[in-house]
Amino acid sequence: MMALLGSSRRNGNTEYLVNEVLEGVDHKEVYLLDHHMNPIIDERHTEQGFGYINDDYEELFFEFMKHDTIIFATPSYWFGMSAQMKIFFDRWSQYMRDDRIDFKEEMRKKQAYVIVIGNKPDPKIAALPLIQQFHYIFDYVGMEFKDYIIGQANKPQEILNDSHALTKAAFWNNQFKQSSHR
Amino acid sequence: MMALLGSSRRNGNTEYLVNEVLEGVDHKEVYLLDHHMNPIIDERHTEQGFGYINDDYEELFFEFMKHDTIIFATPSYWFGMSAQMKIFFDRWSQYMRDDRIDFKEEMRKKQAYVIVIGNKPDPKIAALPLIQQFHYIFDYVGMEFKDYIIGQANKPQEILNDSHALTKAAFWNNQFKQSSHR
Amino acid sequence: MMALLGSSRRNGNTEYLVNEVLEGVDHKEVYLLDHHMNPIIDERHTEQGFGYINDDYEELFFEFMKHDTIIFATPSYWFGMSAQMKIFFDRWSQYMRDDRIDFKEEMRKKQAYVIVIGNKPDPKIAALPLIQQFHYIFDYVGMEFKDYIIGQANKPQEILNDSHALTKAAFWNNQFKQSSHR
Amino acid sequence: MMALLGSSRRNGNTEYLVNEVLEGVDHKEVYLLDHHMNPIIDERHTEQGFGYINDDYEELFFEFMKHDTIIFATPSYWFGMSAQMKIFFDRWSQYMRDDRIDFKEEMRKKQAYVIVIGNKPDPKIAALPLIQQFHYIFDYVGMEFKDYIIGQANKPQEILNDSHALTKAAFWNNQFKQSSHR
Repeated sequence: MMALLGSSRRNGNTEYLVNEVLEGVDHKEVYLLDHHMNPIIDERHTEQGFGYINDDYEELFFEFMKHDTIIFATPSYWFGMSAQMKIFFDRWSQYMRDDRIDFKEEMRKKQAYVIVIGNKPDPKIAALPLIQQFHYIFDYVGMEFKDYIIGQANKPQEILNDSHALTKAAFWNNQFKQSSHR
Repeated sequence: MMALLGSSRRNGNTEYLVNEVLEGVDHKEVYLLDHHMNPIIDERHTEQGFGYINDDYEELFFEFMKHDTIIFATPSYWFGMSAQMKIFFDRWSQYMRDDRIDFKEEMRKKQAYVIVIGNKPDPKIAALPLIQQFHYIFDYVGMEFKDYIIGQANKPQEILNDSHALTKAAFWNNQFKQSSHR
Repeated sequence: MMALLGSSRRNGNTEYLVNEVLEGVDHKEVYLLDHHMNPIIDERHTEQGFGYINDDYEELFFEFMKHDTIIFATPSYWFGMSAQMKIFFDRWSQYMRDDRIDFKEEMRKKQAYVIVIGNKPDPKIAALPLIQQFHYIFDYVGMEFKDYIIGQANKPQEILNDSHALTKAAFWNNQFKQSSHR
Repeated sequence: MMALLGSSRRNGNTEYLVNEVLEGVDHKEVYLLDHHMNPIIDERHTEQGFGYINDDYEELFFEFMKHDTIIFATPSYWFGMSAQMKIFFDRWSQYMRDDRIDFKEEMRKKQAYVIVIGNKPDPKIAALPLIQQFHYIFDYVGMEFKDYIIGQANKPQEILNDSHALTKAAFWNNQFKQSSHR
């Protein structure tokens, strides 16, 4: 179990909900904020192809590859995932072509959960294109898109008012606890 | 007239289409690739608020503010805009709160055009969440979303096979030439 | 409180969920199935305009106009609302132009809840265009789109396996009971 | 080649665009308006299953089954296809279970084109959920979704102002003429 947090600040509502979901569940938490990752430079059509990039991405990517269940948690920034999280996906394009791994084979073993926190306009509607984007991403690589939570909050702690999001987080938490005990 | 290119390589199909659209039209072209921009660090809820970030963004942003017509051109990376372009939008959150400018007032004067180039699955469908995201962004700040082109291409020059995209690019070009002569 | 059911059969999962939501809540339930409604004939651009249509719609429409909270409940048929329910909306176009009522003024007082039941592919994703359509409809007439439930079920009673949908239904039920006691 | 028109009036913009697309192309045109079709009654889970319905649908359906290229043309009514056209799709659910035909096998041979005419808000954005719905429908049955045109018009003849739609219609017309001459 791995949680990837795309927030650009600590102690936010996204983090709060991730903690609810994973309370008592053994997991690896990664704050993308803490890792230096450059946007991708597309070398697909160059002679030399992709080369080694000197930043924190590769280590993060191989950590990610170890886990079967991934929680992608991001605030809705401008109706999309944070740029930090987008870098994480964009860089996949290099590893799809990396002989050291069987990218698609590994991806097909994974299950994805998504947490998106938005504010206004109502993210129950305005975050739907982002949910659809996640669907396309997971479908493309063969990951199973298990479920998503769209929470509504702005200031720190406001997520406590979104009882639907909290209920669903508790539900996931319960499922994760049960499956880890098997 | 300004063209913002989100591609992560030169000489691609996105660039080709932008050149078709702007051939003979006076404009400023900005390759986000050439500019060092950090992802946003959210300081909205801190005491000190946002501070100065030492990268190329602010100069770029003030250049952007000078133009009334903006062409946002991005390849579809993982069914979204490139992280480079996403950084450009995410950083707006700082300038919405910047006393030196009237962000929303300025934005309302602008017109947005979007060019997205995707490959598979068919971007006429798979890029629609991205188009919807652009719509939400522009609607939120009051920019008019004039039109979009979704092109299909992968390898360099493949856009030459997408006659719909080329026709629409020629149509825009014609409109831009006419309006600049007025 | 009014529940409009778009199902084309009795005792289905959509009905089950509506009953959960409205258990103990005073409401008017309308099964569109029981009412003969013709598809609209567009007379907007004819000289005579819309005229009286001899079917059950007008009575239904004026009943609908009496209620402030409406639950639109439909199975997902071919990734949209049922044709029965679509007729209900299409016929609005006549009443927008009806001097006997102030259509938009009345609509602005209403709150909409949506229940959609789908099966495969996963309606949490595949029903999102339908949710977006409801959003556009309500936004256009100024109704507030309060919330939606997307349930997954096929055969009768299968909704009992969708604990998220049931939980949310219970939550709505609780809210409706409380507000009716005020 | 078959054109299915979902409009609820003659001589509208949808019809105009269909005529542009099919000018000089051998085809069968069906106005759903002219055919009496009842909304589906779901008998999937009853003992007797679906039975014969005494209306014009079956004849229409078997005509539809004869053609390999289908143009689905509908005005955007309340951000969706017309109820008339929705009935056409909803009734498929019966024929998927009809032993006289191999529904999915036949569908996989077909190519679909979609024409949607909307007005306000801008259908380039507001019709996207409907385009996504068509995508889900065609994908579900294995039809190829070749292309779509979203036109903007309200009053009769207004489509003449939408040069993008007209250009694309002319482009399709050219393709259809060429392929029918092979």
